[in-house]
Amino acid sequence: MSNFGFLHLRVVNPYEKAFRTARSAVGAAELLASAEEYTSVADAVADCTLVVGTTAVRHREVQHPLRRLEYGARLIRKHMGSGPVALLFGSERFGLSKHDLSFCHWLIRIPTREQHISMNLGQAVAICLYELIRDGRAAAKSEKLVLATGGEVERVTALLADVLSTSSYMLPQRAAETEQRIRLMVRRLKLSAQDVEAWLGILRHVQWDLRSGKKKAD
Amino acid sequence: MSNFGFLHLRVVNPYEKAFRTARSAVGAAELLASAEEYTSVADAVADCTLVVGTTAVRHREVQHPLRRLEYGARLIRKHMGSGPVALLFGSERFGLSKHDLSFCHWLIRIPTREQHISMNLGQAVAICLYELIRDGRAAAKSEKLVLATGGEVERVTALLADVLSTSSYMLPQRAAETEQRIRLMVRRLKLSAQDVEAWLGILRHVQWDLRSGKKKAD
Repeated sequence: MSNFGFLHLRVVNPYEKAFRTARSAVGAAELLASAEEYTSVADAVADCTLVVGTTAVRHREVQHPLRRLEYGARLIRKHMGSGPVALLFGSERFGLSKHDLSFCHWLIRIPTREQHISMNLGQAVAICLYELIRDGRAAAKSEKLVLATGGEVERVTALLADVLSTSSYMLPQRAAETEQRIRLMVRRLKLSAQDVEAWLGILRHVQWDLRSGKKKAD
Repeated sequence: MSNFGFLHLRVVNPYEKAFRTARSAVGAAELLASAEEYTSVADAVADCTLVVGTTAVRHREVQHPLRRLEYGARLIRKHMGSGPVALLFGSERFGLSKHDLSFCHWLIRIPTREQHISMNLGQAVAICLYELIRDGRAAAKSEKLVLATGGEVERVTALLADVLSTSSYMLPQRAAETEQRIRLMVRRLKLSAQDVEAWLGILRHVQWDLRSGKKKAD
């Protein structure tokens, strides 16, 4: 909850011992310390204009409209502008009771595979809240690796060709052909701008060593 | 992992005692029992054509291209068709080391809020895998509540108007006006098809009791 900025935790009849321990644990998030305790679901959701339950079971077994998380979260986000929304989770072992469910307007389910529908409670909460804050248009906001410019790539290419012509790799009679092949290979490397100088440095060292006939001492 | 159908777990130098316990726990998913142990990250990712690391830290501190999960997952899904992908997680306490990171092509981060970037490991894994299987077009696939037809809604409206004219609520001289108002109010209820008969049953009972002057015995 704290990771994603949901700071209002309400608990209904928590298991006292576990909840007290969690609350007083070192590093317990602020929200856990300020969690509100209620004795009934009715009281806990009394000020909410939308109550969405969570379930692992599939449609045939439930009385409510059941929505996949991806779609349900979109509806919740829309609603959040007009009033407080409660996302209701049951106990890890039993989930929400029929009585709990009767306070829900509709239900969401996380799209787990049929063979394994029951989830760890903490993971289920994390996924639901992540879906609420996720940004489908975040691609454009991603920091991108800055690619080397054509000129930088060509400096690497030229130096590499020079090194290879010093070595026995490049046969003089096929120099032009080899250089073209090298040029394409270097371009396929998608060199990042930050690595250009490092690669040039490596090549200069190799070239120096080749020309002076040096070998690294064992 | 099992919830979302990712069945190949590889662990590098796990803490033996905890891992043995987890493996032998009742209800331990099949995938935990068949997890493969490695002694180095290099070996664990040797057959993978893409290795994506996970981190909580932000761009300035890392050497790799860093992508938000929403976008990174899209790239991973594309790649999964052409070769095996490793999603690399560090230990809960320290995350991935610089040596671990050197095996990664790029990194993803879960879009947590700045004030609380560090996540529980199990929750981080669950969220990353959920993002990989989520279906943005799942809206159309959601089971929708079947709304009552106009005819059904009108049967409820007519019976309600009838009940109200029997009661003292509807003044005879304002019957037409009241009925119009009632009609709009009933339409705003967005009655579901499955509830129409139940509401008609309730209204019939009330009407019967009103007409026969009955009161429920205390």
